[in-house]
Amino acid sequence: MRVEIWSDIACPWCYVGKARFEKALAAFPHRDRVEVVHRSFELDPSRARGDVQPVITMLTKKYGMSAAQARAGEADLGAQAAAEGLEYRTEGRDHGSTFDMHRLLHLAKEHGRQDELIQLLYRANFAEERSVFTEGEERLVELAVAAGLDAGDARRVLADPGAYAEDVRADEREAAELGATGVPFFVLDRAYGVSGAQPAEVFERALTQAWGERSPLRPVDGGDAQACGPDGCAVPQG
Amino acid sequence: MRVEIWSDIACPWCYVGKARFEKALAAFPHRDRVEVVHRSFELDPSRARGDVQPVITMLTKKYGMSAAQARAGEADLGAQAAAEGLEYRTEGRDHGSTFDMHRLLHLAKEHGRQDELIQLLYRANFAEERSVFTEGEERLVELAVAAGLDAGDARRVLADPGAYAEDVRADEREAAELGATGVPFFVLDRAYGVSGAQPAEVFERALTQAWGERSPLRPVDGGDAQACGPDGCAVPQG
Repeated sequence: MRVEIWSDIACPWCYVGKARFEKALAAFPHRDRVEVVHRSFELDPSRARGDVQPVITMLTKKYGMSAAQARAGEADLGAQAAAEGLEYRTEGRDHGSTFDMHRLLHLAKEHGRQDELIQLLYRANFAEERSVFTEGEERLVELAVAAGLDAGDARRVLADPGAYAEDVRADEREAAELGATGVPFFVLDRAYGVSGAQPAEVFERALTQAWGERSPLRPVDGGDAQACGPDGCAVPQG
Repeated sequence: MRVEIWSDIACPWCYVGKARFEKALAAFPHRDRVEVVHRSFELDPSRARGDVQPVITMLTKKYGMSAAQARAGEADLGAQAAAEGLEYRTEGRDHGSTFDMHRLLHLAKEHGRQDELIQLLYRANFAEERSVFTEGEERLVELAVAAGLDAGDARRVLADPGAYAEDVRADEREAAELGATGVPFFVLDRAYGVSGAQPAEVFERALTQAWGERSPLRPVDGGDAQACGPDGCAVPQG
């Protein structure tokens, strides 16, 4: 079974939701048969690289919250993160473009290191004092290396704005086609969708349901199957 | 859309079927949205590493063909391969265990090089004079490097018989669960199955059908979605 998770590094519910999903996955009897793929979704796709703001400023300017509302939201997120054993800085975080991080996540996917990198990016953004947005490319390279990627590969991707850019956009188009309007968005075997950082029990239910209802394949008919099996290879007739 | 192809390096119809599928894929309008994954299937899973026989001997001993039948089958396969523009040695090929090759293909998958490697393995087995079964590990390392893998990584996998062994077996169990009794076996989005080296038109039909009938996601209901979207992040109620 394959679970695809659309998310953004700048999305606190994605950080929390990932932990809840992983709790459910750890308890799922068929967890060894579940493949997890992370897909790109930018909450703020029009934000330019280098356009960095404090989170509270972004929340008040972009969404028209009062500063008190924004701070209360952050405090609440901090509490929900803590309940999942996650560190969360409720004050002093920055907001910026995550496009380069998504491009790096596609590099990481090719090297089987996507889960490692996304976890490090979340931690860097939500838990660490240093801003992952203002420290420049070398901070991202450092995280890529910690995730097991080659520093040279990561630098090459960051230096070329087109590298994996189409992969990021294709993921985003696909999210829209699947009906996702926000993240995190979980898709199980392209059959079931779970929206949001649901409690672990909801993910457990979704995993069980999707596993149990995997539909039998519909055969596409062709001519005599030219195939090899335990009894040898079919020799074409005529 | 995702197409999974179960196949074996020792399966001539897999070699031919891959070319036919690729012809269909090249003509498919949504080809950029199709991801191809190769999955393991051994036709001869009980064969020990190093137990190598000429193909004709294997066909007569294992399947009880006469030598003339076996040679006629090979000649026919050669003609069908040629029709797809593939080289095929109808005489003098060897047969042996492909387990190590499948383990290497799982390493290649992690590095985004699976398609490159399987194509080189097919070519090495079906078209080249040197036997891919008798030349030892360094031949496989050479092919892995040609596919873009690191020689050290390939050597480490080959030196450790447990490396990716469970991945190979998991693919094989999954093939059985999906009802595959022979290969090549193509699965489109886990919804449609195509058995055998069908003509390109059958693959075109399968791609079109699977693309057109992608089913909408069924939502798994949970509580209020704690999610972030274009209008900000939902603040939990209570």
